[in-house]
Parts: sequence; structure tokens; C-alpha cells
Amino acid sequence: MRVRNKPWAKEKVLAHPEFVVENPTAYKGKWQERFSKNQPLHIEVGSGKGQFIVGMAKQNPSINYVAVEIEINVLVSILEKQIEEQLPNLQILHANGAALTEYFEVGEVDLVYLNFSDPWPKKRHAKRRLTSPQFLETYETILVPGGEIHFKTDNRGLFEYSLVSFSTYGMRLKEVSLDLHQDDCPENIMTEYEEKFSAKGQPIYRVETAYIN
Amino acid sequence: MRVRNKPWAKEKVLAHPEFVVENPTAYKGKWQERFSKNQPLHIEVGSGKGQFIVGMAKQNPSINYVAVEIEINVLVSILEKQIEEQLPNLQILHANGAALTEYFEVGEVDLVYLNFSDPWPKKRHAKRRLTSPQFLETYETILVPGGEIHFKTDNRGLFEYSLVSFSTYGMRLKEVSLDLHQDDCPENIMTEYEEKFSAKGQPIYRVETAYIN
Repeated sequence: MRVRNKPWAKEKVLAHPEFVVENPTAYKGKWQERFSKNQPLHIEVGSGKGQFIVGMAKQNPSINYVAVEIEINVLVSILEKQIEEQLPNLQILHANGAALTEYFEVGEVDLVYLNFSDPWPKKRHAKRRLTSPQFLETYETILVPGGEIHFKTDNRGLFEYSLVSFSTYGMRLKEVSLDLHQDDCPENIMTEYEEKFSAKGQPIYRVETAYIN
Repeated sequence: MRVRNKPWAKEKVLAHPEFVVENPTAYKGKWQERFSKNQPLHIEVGSGKGQFIVGMAKQNPSINYVAVEIEINVLVSILEKQIEEQLPNLQILHANGAALTEYFEVGEVDLVYLNFSDPWPKKRHAKRRLTSPQFLETYETILVPGGEIHFKTDNRGLFEYSLVSFSTYGMRLKEVSLDLHQDDCPENIMTEYEEKFSAKGQPIYRVETAYIN
């Protein structure tokens, strides 16, 4: 994604410590303190502008959500949505997905969402894909035993790679859709990308996969 | 597939015992005796009119192939191709895929091909799908440890089901293509169906999956 530089982004983020955690390592193992209710914790790695996770938080008030986004010029759009919505079950974390174990305790997270992650199509960049073995190990550490990853993308190459990567890591595929919008999926919350691509008639791929406990 | 009745099929099959095994249970554990050379044994379950397996046998002379087909009116088309080709590495087995353990010894087969199998779309018919757990158990019995299944289809529902079925059974996905004909696949041999469907621009799905030994 090409990102427009927003010089005011940092200031805006600092002005809303109630939504964007200032010192996230301090909440390792204590994320429930950031929410009004103690309930299951789902995170999205790479939340972009946040349409998905804000939609999920509205749809599912009995789940706590953390939006993880590394790019502050994009993260600020999640914040803007949250300033409007004031959802008690949504927090925003400005962090690198590769460093999740610094911010979450072993077994602290119940579910990881990955949506339309960067495909990194060149083979030599495969390690950067959010479904590469190194990332799968990171998610496994912070997830509960048998925890799940729910992953959507329009990128065929990334999806093919990811199915093999999950399987090779020893994870189990629980559900696969190779054309999500042709299926009956009334509860599906679309990301910004997903709206754009599915409107063009391109298939959206989706998988639910679980670690074996 | 709707099949035209061919009253002469049975007679033709009986006239070629050198290609269509007459008493297949007698060859359980002894399939190599049916070939001129002792070499790896690959079988296709549901060979239809045989374009795939005949093409494979021509392309790979150092592999022995058995075409398994239950419908004699279709099997006779494989036979007609083989009468013309006289391939020393192709045998035809008139049998039900569900009964493979009657015809093949434990560990006798090196690889199983499934191509464009009947999708049996109704949930209550799921057991009949050639990638259901019961069939996976049958293939596992006759395959070498760590043996593989290579599966192609144009049917999205069947492919989605099959990926989950393989994974749930404990098999590992080694390679996945969600649009085979967009990939570089110079060695791909097309089935009759595949020619028809891919010409319409429909994606062909393909997976290589292995039992864990």
C-alpha cells in the first residue's frame, strides 16, 4: 500500500492514549486492564485503516480487540474511526507484527486475524510474509493452545503459499473458501481492500486454521 | 458424467486380458508381474476415458500405471487408447475405488491420482467423495509410508472440502495451485474435462498432499 505522509499523525496518536497504548510492553500479560470487560482477546496483525477491526468490534461487543499496525500514517485512520465510535472493546497498538511477543504474554491471545497482508511476491522476500514459519511461531507463542488464525486475501500466490505454510507448520485447516463472496457469509466484515477487489469480481480467499494442541 | 450404454463394451474388455486384468484380486501384491519392468507404481482412481493416464504413461516410461475405473462403458475408451498405443507400462483395472484394498497389497502403490472426481455436492453424499476420510484411509493402506495423492478438479466446493479433509486426516499439503493453467506447468497432462473447462477460462485447482509417515 502506498501511504501518504501525515505529519500530524504522531501528534494525534499521542493525544489519544486511551485508544493507542503509549507504552505497550507495559501491558504484556495485562491487556484485559485496557478494556472495560474481561473477555476473549482477538488481534488483527496489519489492520491498515481499520475498517475490518472496527466493524468486528461493533459486531461483537463480547470480544476485546487489538488492532496492530506498524505504519502510523495508516494507524491514524483506525484512531479516527475509534474517536467517532468510542468502542469500549477496541484498542490500537502501534507495533511491528514480528515483535508481538514483546507485547503479548504466552497464551494471552485467543485468535489472530490476518487480512490482505502484503504478498511479498518475490521468493527471496518470503520470510516477510505474515504467514511464513517465523511469524507462525510468533503467533503460536502468544495464542492459547489450539488457537486459530483467520486469514483473508485476494492474492492467489500468497494464499497458495499460506495453505502450504500452515500445513507444513503442522496446523490444521478447519475451513477454506476460494470465493468468499459467492458463499453465504452474512457476518463477513469487509476490509477496505476487500470492498475494492470483490467489486471487480475477483475472488476473495479465506481460511480458518488452528494450531494443534 | 452421463454415460452412453455400449452393449459391446464387456465383450471388448474380455477380448483384451493383456490390458484389462481379468481376475484382479489375484494380483494383489503382485502388480509388477503385469508390467515388463519392475518400477514405481502409480494409480489413478476414476480414470474416465483415460486421456490423463495414457498421457502420463507415454510421458513417463519409467513408471508403471494402473487406471482404475468402475464404469465399463467409460473404461472401454481407455482400452481403445491402449490398443492403439500398446504401452508396456499401463494396465487397466475394472473396479470400485472403495474396494482398492482387495486389489492392492499394503504399501504396494507409490502415488494416487484423483482427477475431476464426482463432486457429490449434497452434504449427505459427502462420504462418496473420493477425498472423504474413508477413502483417505483406503489410499493410506495401499500406499507406501509418506505416499502422496495428487488431485485436480474444477469444482470449487469439492476442492475446499478436500483441502480440509486432507488436513483433518493429518496429511500435509505440499503444493497448491488455485489456477493451474495460469502457472508454469509444462508437464501437466490434461484430462478430457480439464480441456473443456479450462478452455472456458475456469480455474483448475490442484494439490499435492502426503501422508505423514
